Amino acid sequence: MSSLRGLYGSKGDTAGQDNLGVDYVICYKVPPKERAEAEAGFVQVVEALTRVGLAVEVRGGGDADSLLLFVKAASPDLLARHVYRSRLQDWLGGARTSGPESDVSRSLRQDPVTEAERLRIVYQIITRPQNEGGAGISDSASSGPSKHVAAVFPLHDQAFNKAWIQRWSKKYTIDQSDIDEIRDKFGEDVAFYFAFLRSYFRWLVFPSAFGFACWLILGQFSFVYTLGIGLWSVVFLEYWKKKEVDLAVQWGVRGVSAIQQHRPEFKWDFETEDAITGEPKKVYSHTKRLQTQLLQVPFALSCVVVLGGLVVICNSLEIFINEVYDGPFKQYLAFLPTVLLVVFTPTFSAVLMGAANVLTDKENYETTDSYHAALVQKQFVLNFMTSYMALFFTAFVYIPFGDILLPLLEFWRTTAQVVTFSDKAPPTQKFQVNPQRISSQMFYFTVTAQIVNFATEVVVPYVTHKATTKAKELQGKKAPAHDPSEEVDFLKRVRDECELEAYDVTGDYREMVMQYGYLSLFSVAWPLAACCFLVNNWVELRSDALKIAISCKRPIPWRSDSIGPWLTAIGFLSWLGSITSSAIVYLCSGSRNGARGTTSQFTAWGVLLSILLAEHFYLAVQQAVRYVMGKVESPGLQRERKERYLMKKKLLQENLGEDAEEKASPPGIETTEKITRATLEEEARQASVRGQGTAEEMFWQRQRGMQETILVGRKLISLGASETGNKLDDPAPSPRA
Amino acid sequence: MSSLRGLYGSKGDTAGQDNLGVDYVICYKVPPKERAEAEAGFVQVVEALTRVGLAVEVRGGGDADSLLLFVKAASPDLLARHVYRSRLQDWLGGARTSGPESDVSRSLRQDPVTEAERLRIVYQIITRPQNEGGAGISDSASSGPSKHVAAVFPLHDQAFNKAWIQRWSKKYTIDQSDIDEIRDKFGEDVAFYFAFLRSYFRWLVFPSAFGFACWLILGQFSFVYTLGIGLWSVVFLEYWKKKEVDLAVQWGVRGVSAIQQHRPEFKWDFETEDAITGEPKKVYSHTKRLQTQLLQVPFALSCVVVLGGLVVICNSLEIFINEVYDGPFKQYLAFLPTVLLVVFTPTFSAVLMGAANVLTDKENYETTDSYHAALVQKQFVLNFMTSYMALFFTAFVYIPFGDILLPLLEFWRTTAQVVTFSDKAPPTQKFQVNPQRISSQMFYFTVTAQIVNFATEVVVPYVTHKATTKAKELQGKKAPAHDPSEEVDFLKRVRDECELEAYDVTGDYREMVMQYGYLSLFSVAWPLAACCFLVNNWVELRSDALKIAISCKRPIPWRSDSIGPWLTAIGFLSWLGSITSSAIVYLCSGSRNGARGTTSQFTAWGVLLSILLAEHFYLAVQQAVRYVMGKVESPGLQRERKERYLMKKKLLQENLGEDAEEKASPPGIETTEKITRATLEEEARQASVRGQGTAEEMFWQRQRGMQETILVGRKLISLGASETGNKLDDPAPSPRA
Repeated sequence: MSSLRGLYGSKGDTAGQDNLGVDYVICYKVPPKERAEAEAGFVQVVEALTRVGLAVEVRGGGDADSLLLFVKAASPDLLARHVYRSRLQDWLGGARTSGPESDVSRSLRQDPVTEAERLRIVYQIITRPQNEGGAGISDSASSGPSKHVAAVFPLHDQAFNKAWIQRWSKKYTIDQSDIDEIRDKFGEDVAFYFAFLRSYFRWLVFPSAFGFACWLILGQFSFVYTLGIGLWSVVFLEYWKKKEVDLAVQWGVRGVSAIQQHRPEFKWDFETEDAITGEPKKVYSHTKRLQTQLLQVPFALSCVVVLGGLVVICNSLEIFINEVYDGPFKQYLAFLPTVLLVVFTPTFSAVLMGAANVLTDKENYETTDSYHAALVQKQFVLNFMTSYMALFFTAFVYIPFGDILLPLLEFWRTTAQVVTFSDKAPPTQKFQVNPQRISSQMFYFTVTAQIVNFATEVVVPYVTHKATTKAKELQGKKAPAHDPSEEVDFLKRVRDECELEAYDVTGDYREMVMQYGYLSLFSVAWPLAACCFLVNNWVELRSDALKIAISCKRPIPWRSDSIGPWLTAIGFLSWLGSITSSAIVYLCSGSRNGARGTTSQFTAWGVLLSILLAEHFYLAVQQAVRYVMGKVESPGLQRERKERYLMKKKLLQENLGEDAEEKASPPGIETTEKITRATLEEEARQASVRGQGTAEEMFWQRQRGMQETILVGRKLISLGASETGNKLDDPAPSPRA
Repeated sequence: MSSLRGLYGSKGDTAGQDNLGVDYVICYKVPPKERAEAEAGFVQVVEALTRVGLAVEVRGGGDADSLLLFVKAASPDLLARHVYRSRLQDWLGGARTSGPESDVSRSLRQDPVTEAERLRIVYQIITRPQNEGGAGISDSASSGPSKHVAAVFPLHDQAFNKAWIQRWSKKYTIDQSDIDEIRDKFGEDVAFYFAFLRSYFRWLVFPSAFGFACWLILGQFSFVYTLGIGLWSVVFLEYWKKKEVDLAVQWGVRGVSAIQQHRPEFKWDFETEDAITGEPKKVYSHTKRLQTQLLQVPFALSCVVVLGGLVVICNSLEIFINEVYDGPFKQYLAFLPTVLLVVFTPTFSAVLMGAANVLTDKENYETTDSYHAALVQKQFVLNFMTSYMALFFTAFVYIPFGDILLPLLEFWRTTAQVVTFSDKAPPTQKFQVNPQRISSQMFYFTVTAQIVNFATEVVVPYVTHKATTKAKELQGKKAPAHDPSEEVDFLKRVRDECELEAYDVTGDYREMVMQYGYLSLFSVAWPLAACCFLVNNWVELRSDALKIAISCKRPIPWRSDSIGPWLTAIGFLSWLGSITSSAIVYLCSGSRNGARGTTSQFTAWGVLLSILLAEHFYLAVQQAVRYVMGKVESPGLQRERKERYLMKKKLLQENLGEDAEEKASPPGIETTEKITRATLEEEARQASVRGQGTAEEMFWQRQRGMQETILVGRKLISLGASETGNKLDDPAPSPRA
């Protein structure tokens, strides 16, 4: 058993020494006002951790009000048992094709434990409720001994991170092996994000080239481009669905999403037994949840009204100032709408996001997956509004129906009049639709916004973190001076990591999905979008790696077998894209040369027809692509098929091997003795001895053995041939009577 | 082993004696011209059957040119082994949740063999190729020993059939147990048809009541009715999908569709080894098949042109004669279009059907399922045209755009002029659209056609069969007079059954699916349709039973786990229904009172919008219903879940039972000896002896055991509390140093 130790070891020697074998660090806060309570809680935490077999060390935190608890599995045997148990449960839950060997140590030697698996299992030991064999420590509890636990996180593998960032910054393309490495270190959940981003990045090459060509040859609003992008999005989506399954099989996590993790925060009405299996289960009334879920409707409506209203107000104001207003301070006023947007969008979003969080908590989901999916859904609605509303406004209101903006512009004119206390209207130009507006907006969203985003995502947190650390040092609030000398560097690093943000892969997914939306919904208005995204995502891949490595805590290595709710979001955006793109082409293509002005030459008939056609084209292509893709077998599925075939072959041989011998002599083949008077008499005697037998016996004994049957058959055939002649004495089917 | 006999026995005593234990009858033709060849073939057939362990008896056929071969499994042991083998392969193919017991006889006792299973397995022994362990007899071979085999069929269980028909003709509703009985006798393939028909019949109650109410209150072309029917069809479809899975689980056939049966007619280009598993496999070039499949396009086009053209010609002629023409012989000419339709539709259909068969054969599918699906697809196209074309013409051409028919009517007028050799045009009325036309057509299709169908399906075959038997008797071509006296009745019955048609469930499915199509696509024009279908299907359930029982050969009891390709067809019709219904409502509702005449008041805009809305309503409802249905657990799935839970529980207990004891004493809990100067000195000594150890060892040895950690933590907390005061001599994390 002592040799088991070596099996956990993708942590190399240097790296292991760096982290001193620490699996998790628990940051424990001791607020001055609740010192006694915190102290009692601390004792309970240490006791709980030790009781489940974890080794604990304590050191002082970054400031006087916190402690650092270092945790590792006390013995390799214990960890081995936990790993084995977890794998067995995976297999029973359907996530592995073959069950683990019954000998624990052999099983682990065959299939070594990756760092991610070890960290995941230790985390589960720390956080699982006490009645399920865990220590019940959670960093989100609002009462109990864990109340003062601020964070539970694994330590970064500095050597690996350094090598990783260096390698990625030097190579042009990321390989599958790079993704596999991430999986081993950070778990499948994070690895799936990078795998998705890598696939998406590579697939972007097609729309980039195609978009560039279309932009050169056909310009904006080309129907050909719409078709191309529609086709591309269908194929990409179906490709990713297959790729996802494939990766899950390769990583041995296919089906883990079916093994649901219970949320510790779940509150149940009562406990009962499952009517079917007798399993104990916790019940929360469906109607109560549904009632809460209905609140999503007002939530979505308020998103639309608040954020939509903001966009309409700011956009129409901008249009008024830029294109109509001609009075004083024009150059300064031009910034007003942008300032309003920049100030109010995050404010409103934050409020609504808060509401979304509260709402999802209230919906009281039983499993982390359903909770997460519900939250992502609400975030998606919110982000959809903030990201696309302005473009929807421009594409479907401003460009085609510029006229209906006139009352709004009139309102702004009156406002301007009132604000300036003048009794004559401010000097204005004649309002004319500027068809380039959508392109400049797209440029803003695809270039400016992405750069700003990069800055806020990577640069700002890093700088802030450095600055606060510096500030703390300057304030004299530096690390306690009483650290043992040989641990000073290590503890400083741990305290640093403790201050970092937790990494949330959701944010990164959201960013990519929203980008995909720009491409699918609006890129027809600016076909160069894909090129920008291609460049952006090359950087994004690396900056996200950098973010994990330097500006976030190391994530808990969760597993997953797909990109989850984001897949639905991408599917939705693709479908919606088929509609919006065709409508934009129809509505805006007339205005390309600015020739149409404010009169609308299109008919509602045409819009509806182009939407109808585009959507059905999309759906038909989707069916076709799914059919074709269904025929193609990916490496992961091939592996699964091979395993199943081998198992089948083995079992069949085991069970039916003896069949061959038994088959040798079926009854009835032996040549019938020649029919002679003697045998016939014998026959008759036997029959009378048996007393005739049942009708069934009589029937089947009339011809005994194959030869007799053939003989009688031949007789019958020749009988048929000579219908009248050759009257036999006894043409009955039995040759003897 | 001899006790195994009793296990095959759902065939009761009387029934068993009726059929004298015969499993299958092979009807062997001996054409006078090929007598020698046929005789040689006969010998080979008997030898082949005997060699695989079947008992064979021969008797004379119904006429001089045929023989009857009676076949049964020669020994119960042999059959038991085959059953076991088949079940094992099912399990390996994924069709059973648990594998059969390794002891054959116990396995069969636990899960007795139904009559359907026995007959299926015997049939497989008879028909499977010789290299796969069968006798290689097929009734569709064009060469080889089976060339003259005209039919291979099991005998009807007369007693059961009689009781079945009597029971069904007396009860109002068919229960699940009735369907289960059919499954035991005729196999899952037939049982699924009856199960579908039963569900469909019961579900028809809603549209009947709703349609009747709508007809009373709202009349034809009501938007409310369209919504109601759309909703109903979505819910019904999703319900059936669940029900289907449920039945498959209950009958133990879930997943059998994945176990593909190879078609003996399949011709392969070459044999090779599967690149992944090394399994031998037969390959037919995909491109060659695709090239053949492309012929489906001209096939579908010719269906549209030929049958569509016929419908347009006959319908416009009928309109001309009935509504415009006012000359002589009007009352006789009125029948002309109907006569044309009745004569040419079946003729053209037969030709096209032949083409479909040839085409599907040429496509050379490897498995029976894919062959069947491809054939059904073509039949569906054909039937779609013959069934709905006339209604499409009326609903989408005649009623809304009566005007565009004028040139066609003019053509008929000229033709009439030419035919009658008169130089003045025949007397005509002014053409006016008759909006009641669609109702009368729907009446024809829902009432008249269904009655005619019933007659051709049940009455005609029965009468024909009786008549030909009578005719044969009168011709003196009666049964050979040399039958053994006690077998005369039995052989007469067998010869009778030999003359019957083979039962094909496809025809029955087609009829129901087409009926569903009328309901979904056009019933908005005549809301009473569902009522007629309800009545019709009450009869249909019984007449189909009657058809199987008396006018067809007993079907081979095939298995299946769903209604297969028909499910897709129903889905397609439901979706199309959402479009046509809304379009009909929009196009035709203005003409309800005949007020509109030939001018069209609608706009293309409106049609498209109503289609767009209706379709998206349909798709949205579908998503919602699927979501809700996904939450509901059906009895079959509950059973599966229970089985899986019990297996999981058992395995977990087996593997992790010892866990509890081992958990007793995690390390580090033992109370630390009080820290005294003495212990600390001892400590220091030990450390120096060990030579300091690695950094990691140093780190984790600083606090040994839980109590020390707690102690140090408390010290650190109090240290934090009194930042300045209480300067300890040694505030280091280790209590000793």
